[in-house]
Amino acid sequence: MERMIESAMERIGSYSVEEYMRLAESFHGHTSPGVLMGGFMVDLAGRLMPEGVLFDAICETASCLPDAIQLLTPCTVGNGWLKIINLGRYALTLYEKHSGQGTRVFLDAARLEPWPELKAWFLKLRPKAEQDEERLLAEIVKAGRGVYGAQAVLVEPRFLQKKSKGAIDICRVCGEAYPVQDGDVCLACQGENLYVFVQPRALSPTEAMPHGAEPPSSAKGYKSKGG
Amino acid sequence: MERMIESAMERIGSYSVEEYMRLAESFHGHTSPGVLMGGFMVDLAGRLMPEGVLFDAICETASCLPDAIQLLTPCTVGNGWLKIINLGRYALTLYEKHSGQGTRVFLDAARLEPWPELKAWFLKLRPKAEQDEERLLAEIVKAGRGVYGAQAVLVEPRFLQKKSKGAIDICRVCGEAYPVQDGDVCLACQGENLYVFVQPRALSPTEAMPHGAEPPSSAKGYKSKGG
Repeated sequence: MERMIESAMERIGSYSVEEYMRLAESFHGHTSPGVLMGGFMVDLAGRLMPEGVLFDAICETASCLPDAIQLLTPCTVGNGWLKIINLGRYALTLYEKHSGQGTRVFLDAARLEPWPELKAWFLKLRPKAEQDEERLLAEIVKAGRGVYGAQAVLVEPRFLQKKSKGAIDICRVCGEAYPVQDGDVCLACQGENLYVFVQPRALSPTEAMPHGAEPPSSAKGYKSKGG
Repeated sequence: MERMIESAMERIGSYSVEEYMRLAESFHGHTSPGVLMGGFMVDLAGRLMPEGVLFDAICETASCLPDAIQLLTPCTVGNGWLKIINLGRYALTLYEKHSGQGTRVFLDAARLEPWPELKAWFLKLRPKAEQDEERLLAEIVKAGRGVYGAQAVLVEPRFLQKKSKGAIDICRVCGEAYPVQDGDVCLACQGENLYVFVQPRALSPTEAMPHGAEPPSSAKGYKSKGG
């Protein structure tokens, strides 16, 4: 009981666990176990960084954890302060942007023993249908910061330089702007295409929406997948 | 004047332009021209999708635009519904997740002529010190959806399958969990390391924080880089 009260008072960044779970749900679509764990991990890494440091972030997985970083730190993929290097490990690093000195926090598999549901989920020991999601989330909250490891790291110099895209030109094949350093034509027109079919003549917004489509009314702009 | 009133009434998703700019600032760190443009682009793509469709997103640049997608749609990098394939083009695609049918919206360089500040910024025609940020943002708002092109696309089948990480094992070098399909040991221990130095013996949270570091008090959890 004492443990549960302690857990209920646990905070994630400046949020209570419940506030963070609501925030995660609105951004990530649902309160996934990974985003909840990520909250405790980012919180731990942040507490271990010196006060007032301008930090960047590296995430070693593309699953869930990047969203916890984006919710709890100034680092996002779009502003370039979060880099996702998918090494398949559930770990993140916050590091001082000039020196590269930082803290890496990872899920420590050796500390999962007291948490059977968390262990079974994380190591995929049981089919999804046999998982108890409610119990899993409760175990993650009760475990708090206790199942993670922290270590001092110095990140590779390549993460410390801000890459400039350099000069911009218009691709003579597709007619769109692209970084000159990519080559004579843009990467898509060099063959890295993402589409089986592309409408050859693009429409202007007025042509595409002659009567003006209705804007969405839900909180995040568009209908959620979960809803 | 009429044009300005019209622009002021422009909406981005379910937000007014001002609301969206505040949201972008809190998430992205500042109201960047790219995130503001991205708002109009995601809004346009969303309006061109059929009602009630469950869509995924592809972003063809890593700069700014991914954050507009994450703010305005259910798609995030962490939930896997947003894929960033950096082709250096300022474009995004929303597509029905099973069929791959979607709408691609891109900045149409041919439509920039009436907007000198926007054109100079986007095509990097002037050094940053000579840019007028206020005028640039005002031009983006006034241009509204008018500087973008839209086209129907069918995305490559590889984007329609959900990739499973498969079985998980413990890496016998670093002791962390990793996807077995990556090899005998995890990718980091195969040499894709991100760090010049890693503290050999990781600390438990209790060892790392003997007296408990103070949690942050700012809105996004940790001190913003901008502040």
